[in-house]
Amino acid sequence: MRVFIAGVDGYLGWPLAMYLTKRGHTVAGADNYMRRDWVQEMSSQSASPISRMTDRLEAFRDNFDRNMRFFKGDLTNYNFVENAFRSFKPDAVVHLGEMPSAPYSMIDVEHTTWTQVNNIVGTLNILYAMRDICPESHLVKLGTMGEYGTPNIDIPEGFFEIEYRGRKDRLPFPRQAGSWYHQTKVHDSNNVMFACRIWGLRSTDIMQGVVFGTRIDEMGDDQRLLTRFDFDQCFGTAINRFCCQAVIGEPITPFGKGGQRRGFLPLRDSMQCLTIAVENPPAKGEYRVFNQFQEVYGITELAEMVHRVAASLGIDSEIRNVENPRKEMEEHYYNPDHRHLFDLGYEPTTDVESEIAVMLNDLRNWHDRIEARREVLMPDVRWDGRREKVTYIDPAEKRGKIRAV
Amino acid sequence: MRVFIAGVDGYLGWPLAMYLTKRGHTVAGADNYMRRDWVQEMSSQSASPISRMTDRLEAFRDNFDRNMRFFKGDLTNYNFVENAFRSFKPDAVVHLGEMPSAPYSMIDVEHTTWTQVNNIVGTLNILYAMRDICPESHLVKLGTMGEYGTPNIDIPEGFFEIEYRGRKDRLPFPRQAGSWYHQTKVHDSNNVMFACRIWGLRSTDIMQGVVFGTRIDEMGDDQRLLTRFDFDQCFGTAINRFCCQAVIGEPITPFGKGGQRRGFLPLRDSMQCLTIAVENPPAKGEYRVFNQFQEVYGITELAEMVHRVAASLGIDSEIRNVENPRKEMEEHYYNPDHRHLFDLGYEPTTDVESEIAVMLNDLRNWHDRIEARREVLMPDVRWDGRREKVTYIDPAEKRGKIRAV
Repeated sequence: MRVFIAGVDGYLGWPLAMYLTKRGHTVAGADNYMRRDWVQEMSSQSASPISRMTDRLEAFRDNFDRNMRFFKGDLTNYNFVENAFRSFKPDAVVHLGEMPSAPYSMIDVEHTTWTQVNNIVGTLNILYAMRDICPESHLVKLGTMGEYGTPNIDIPEGFFEIEYRGRKDRLPFPRQAGSWYHQTKVHDSNNVMFACRIWGLRSTDIMQGVVFGTRIDEMGDDQRLLTRFDFDQCFGTAINRFCCQAVIGEPITPFGKGGQRRGFLPLRDSMQCLTIAVENPPAKGEYRVFNQFQEVYGITELAEMVHRVAASLGIDSEIRNVENPRKEMEEHYYNPDHRHLFDLGYEPTTDVESEIAVMLNDLRNWHDRIEARREVLMPDVRWDGRREKVTYIDPAEKRGKIRAV
Repeated sequence: MRVFIAGVDGYLGWPLAMYLTKRGHTVAGADNYMRRDWVQEMSSQSASPISRMTDRLEAFRDNFDRNMRFFKGDLTNYNFVENAFRSFKPDAVVHLGEMPSAPYSMIDVEHTTWTQVNNIVGTLNILYAMRDICPESHLVKLGTMGEYGTPNIDIPEGFFEIEYRGRKDRLPFPRQAGSWYHQTKVHDSNNVMFACRIWGLRSTDIMQGVVFGTRIDEMGDDQRLLTRFDFDQCFGTAINRFCCQAVIGEPITPFGKGGQRRGFLPLRDSMQCLTIAVENPPAKGEYRVFNQFQEVYGITELAEMVHRVAASLGIDSEIRNVENPRKEMEEHYYNPDHRHLFDLGYEPTTDVESEIAVMLNDLRNWHDRIEARREVLMPDVRWDGRREKVTYIDPAEKRGKIRAV
């Protein structure tokens, strides 16, 4: 299949290009290098020493014996999207080209409005270009499990059958997103669902859990093929940041009580899942939702797992809870379905503990790059609008508790 | 109270300024005259001969013995909103300043993306300015009943208690909006709800039905105080367009089968409802939803009512269904709650039939202004992306049926 990856320079996009190519697909990608700019804005850098795109493309050719077409440009420019689609004629469009950070979207009014405009307009442009240029193609759109929030009932995959006052219907499951960024994914879901309804487009909307990990096998040993790995407060996700903290001897810092539960999956299985979606397109006009994660964990559990695996590798670490800069429930029910991908053949290739060991080994090689930006690990963007570094909670008591685990 | 009306030059905003002033409130307003531009873009004009803002403000002073502060500018410019709020210090902000047309948002990619950006960014700017300047004030935000779509179950007011797989929660009612414009209202609802949650703002989100009518009593006989009245395919709502068609001898044109059911309320009662919301603010941090309409009617019922009232005034009219340019259910269950406003004292002051008589009398005075733009009454913006005038369906059979009613 001809697969167009929007956001091919990103954490997921770049490995996906290799993964799909290895499976025989013809891949093209677009990017505007914005992720590099955002991370720089956060005074941070990728822990992995990533190559610039020209070197990435050269390495791609060296390793996979074919060129990957690359379109440099901005998805909010309709002409750019239109020209790329006309030229490449995709069978599938994997849309990873959005601003993906909750804290970044919460910084101030400029960051909030920019985030919402950027994500919504990029997706609308893709929908219009599909309608007018490749109406039979399949949009694999990256959403997030965060769209659902943490309701006190089970979370189905996108839709649920309910009875209300004696009548029944199948309706979209209510969304209760927890940041301005997460709201953009909700807005996108509504827009994509509507486009499928009125224009007969087909789409898989991926409610993805938190992805972690440094590598996929397709990278081999060519350093030029490394994907980025962020650890700053905005672009580093929980496990990734915990591992970086362990490696440079900073405390591992769950937010608040640490009882927040989320779905997680390793980078390599994210590639597998996205590929399953690409290779099994829905019917014309169908809008379907996949909840994409391997297993649900509590944040404290993960912190403890990182602590334990680090110890087994001879890395001494400690866990210290910090104030929660977010407004979110810190103890709650959480039971989302995730059958659709398993039904299509998804088989987890690794468990969280083994993947953390792989990560810690990689990160040790990048110790100095993390150490040089250690101050970006502690968040200061707060949901109440203040910009002020969080502090440790009850340090003595918490440390005692953790040691006892 | 000090009430700031965003969109004070519009169909609802201008009469609301008078209505609130008459009740003793201090009103300020903002507008950028965009509605005038959009209607001009549709090759149309207001049926009522409206004054320019300078003349409106002078008439306002003459009739109400006080000045209304007016801020000319664009809500998508944060500095504009911030400066206006700092200067006026509102207790309540009534946000009527969005692009309100479904067909306009469906024209093409430029109109879609512009609509979504305009509406979403304007609302985000208002939320931020409230947080930073007047966090105790109350946002009365105009949404639409169209956010809910037409589910096969009852529609509660914003939230519902449900049981799912043996567990219970109170959740936002799922939204299934029917145009890119309606989607902006859904996006806004999500954004406003979130702002109340994280910043402790208070808001009433008004799911308003279709408003119709030419006047409110507060206008008296001063022609300079008239509000606008649109009849083009984009900015004229169903009853308003039906009445214009009757007055100039064009067939009254329900879309498709005409079995679409919607909530309706007269302009004067929309003023009453918005005022009830303003005068009864919710608690700090509370986000509440009012379904605001008087009664539910089918489109064919309304066409027949216009036909009947017109006949009683000596106006001969006929009903001819046209192709439906939209994608929507033309026969469906529809039973939305609307208790909250009644609980706070809303009392309908008129019935649809009497209000139609008032409208038809006004519109007869503006016959030539409608006649001059008669070609704008038949829609050509279609939900499938084509731009092509709709045509009559089975003219002979339909006309026979209607005559028999």
